Amino acid sequence: MAERIGQRSVRFGEHITVIGYGSAVGKKEGSGPLGDCFDRVVDDSEPLEGSWEKSESALQSAALTEAMKRAALEPAGIDMIFAGDLLNQCVGSTFGLLPYGIPMGGVFGACSTMALSLMMASMAAEAGVAECAAAVTSSHFCTAERQFRNPLEYGGQRSPTSQWTATASGAVCVGSGGRVKVVGGCMGKIIDLGVADANNMGAAMAPAAADTVVAYLRDTGTAPDDYDAIFTGDLGVVGSGLFLQLMTAAGYTADGVHRDCGKLLYDIERQDVHAGGSGCGCSASVLCGHILPSLERGRLRRVLFCATGALMSTTSGQQGDNIPGIAHLIELSV
Amino acid sequence: MAERIGQRSVRFGEHITVIGYGSAVGKKEGSGPLGDCFDRVVDDSEPLEGSWEKSESALQSAALTEAMKRAALEPAGIDMIFAGDLLNQCVGSTFGLLPYGIPMGGVFGACSTMALSLMMASMAAEAGVAECAAAVTSSHFCTAERQFRNPLEYGGQRSPTSQWTATASGAVCVGSGGRVKVVGGCMGKIIDLGVADANNMGAAMAPAAADTVVAYLRDTGTAPDDYDAIFTGDLGVVGSGLFLQLMTAAGYTADGVHRDCGKLLYDIERQDVHAGGSGCGCSASVLCGHILPSLERGRLRRVLFCATGALMSTTSGQQGDNIPGIAHLIELSV
Repeated sequence: MAERIGQRSVRFGEHITVIGYGSAVGKKEGSGPLGDCFDRVVDDSEPLEGSWEKSESALQSAALTEAMKRAALEPAGIDMIFAGDLLNQCVGSTFGLLPYGIPMGGVFGACSTMALSLMMASMAAEAGVAECAAAVTSSHFCTAERQFRNPLEYGGQRSPTSQWTATASGAVCVGSGGRVKVVGGCMGKIIDLGVADANNMGAAMAPAAADTVVAYLRDTGTAPDDYDAIFTGDLGVVGSGLFLQLMTAAGYTADGVHRDCGKLLYDIERQDVHAGGSGCGCSASVLCGHILPSLERGRLRRVLFCATGALMSTTSGQQGDNIPGIAHLIELSV
Repeated sequence: MAERIGQRSVRFGEHITVIGYGSAVGKKEGSGPLGDCFDRVVDDSEPLEGSWEKSESALQSAALTEAMKRAALEPAGIDMIFAGDLLNQCVGSTFGLLPYGIPMGGVFGACSTMALSLMMASMAAEAGVAECAAAVTSSHFCTAERQFRNPLEYGGQRSPTSQWTATASGAVCVGSGGRVKVVGGCMGKIIDLGVADANNMGAAMAPAAADTVVAYLRDTGTAPDDYDAIFTGDLGVVGSGLFLQLMTAAGYTADGVHRDCGKLLYDIERQDVHAGGSGCGCSASVLCGHILPSLERGRLRRVLFCATGALMSTTSGQQGDNIPGIAHLIELSV
């Protein structure tokens, strides 16, 4: 049974662990600083079956397959999957996971989806609803650009604060007996400080990240330095600066231990991604390609993984709404 | 601790109950056969603040407020909400639930969302992650028509098999001490039998409904007649017929106890809704306006609530993809 701690946080039982994980990314991500860490780097220069959406679904299939391989599980060994993506009605997950025949719960948290689905998978395992539950998510530069911004062929100019949607997917299997523990976590609140610029997602999400991290630190009575790293994702360059300012204002100095998945995935200058990476697949692939392997190998021992999402659609944007943010947090340790 | 039963089903502990519920619907739904059952019937002849999306969000707020009232809870008494809707990136839930400041997990299951979010809320309560968790969902005729079909002003002809997206919302609070028990449930698999007609959602969803109901009956060793009613939603007229055929093919006669939320919400002939109602809010409002009150009053004692969703987007439709279905099931009893 999980234990509620303080206002909003939760601690899972010792048996809630990561038993497998997998990652699949595109060529750009594969030639970034973490390129060697991913299970699969796929050639994404042409759309699969003529559809970038099919390409995104294939990334989810690849990541899940790699996670099952590491967990030594067949699809029948996974009781349920929690999955989502940025596409309208989460069709990336629908078509990516359809072939596996595993019961599925759809999740939407924009770029925070990996932390949210990992929370749900851990809850399912803790509740006894699943012996093994998986969390899967993805994003794709080409599907996101077309859906949220402009057709690729338009060649739109990108603003300096804009982020690059990662072509990437990550999958995690939660069950008992793994080396990395899912210690606990904190569900995010929807936070709206009035940012309405869809080309500055980092600013829209930073307040939510600070809100959730501060809530978890207060609830658990811990300080940033108690962790080897606090990973946010995907605040990018702009959002990371704002996050650290907000943390300082709340009385926490996180500068030394803070890392951001949107800054880790790319060589920001060389790869011309402006303010950094974003997308459900960004923090998911950094989690599964970098954070979890580093925990398994003992290079990291205790970390916070706080994935952040910008809650907007093209309709809400066109109607002049603000972009509220949300951030869900998971603590991992060995 | 929940108990896994058979292949895919689960039984929750005795303490997992419904402690509050609320519903809010539009004028058309309010003048249907269940019109007197809903907590609020709102005048939806004009969009709120000029936006139908705002109108949909307001329905969620209204339903949640009514559910909190029945549960005698303030927002601070709800540990987390699981919510979703049909709008791209679930913005109906984002803006409907933002004012409450309650931690939120976004859920996507198309029209099956109420059963899925109820499953997640029950899981959260069972895991000890929440003392009280809420499940909220909505749909709106005008937001759905514009997003999935045509602008309202276009006045498009509707096909005989098409369903009418309900302007409706439902909210359920799960915790301990309520009269209606959340006995257990079954998460749905994504099922694709090749239906690709977006004007025949019932046919697309019926196989998923049959798959989940049959799985639950087999896992629990029960028969349709063990229940006072098996509610599907929202198969409508066409999908309900197909569902019963598939049940018969699987060896179960469900004709006597089967009800469909899409058929219950409207007077199908008089209200000109063609094959019946649909939308996340359809089964949610029937659950919260009709099923739960009937259970509380002892008119029903044991029911299955199997909400069904069609997993498609305009993009997947335009790319010629099939429309896979999914159905999640919850057993309720007093």
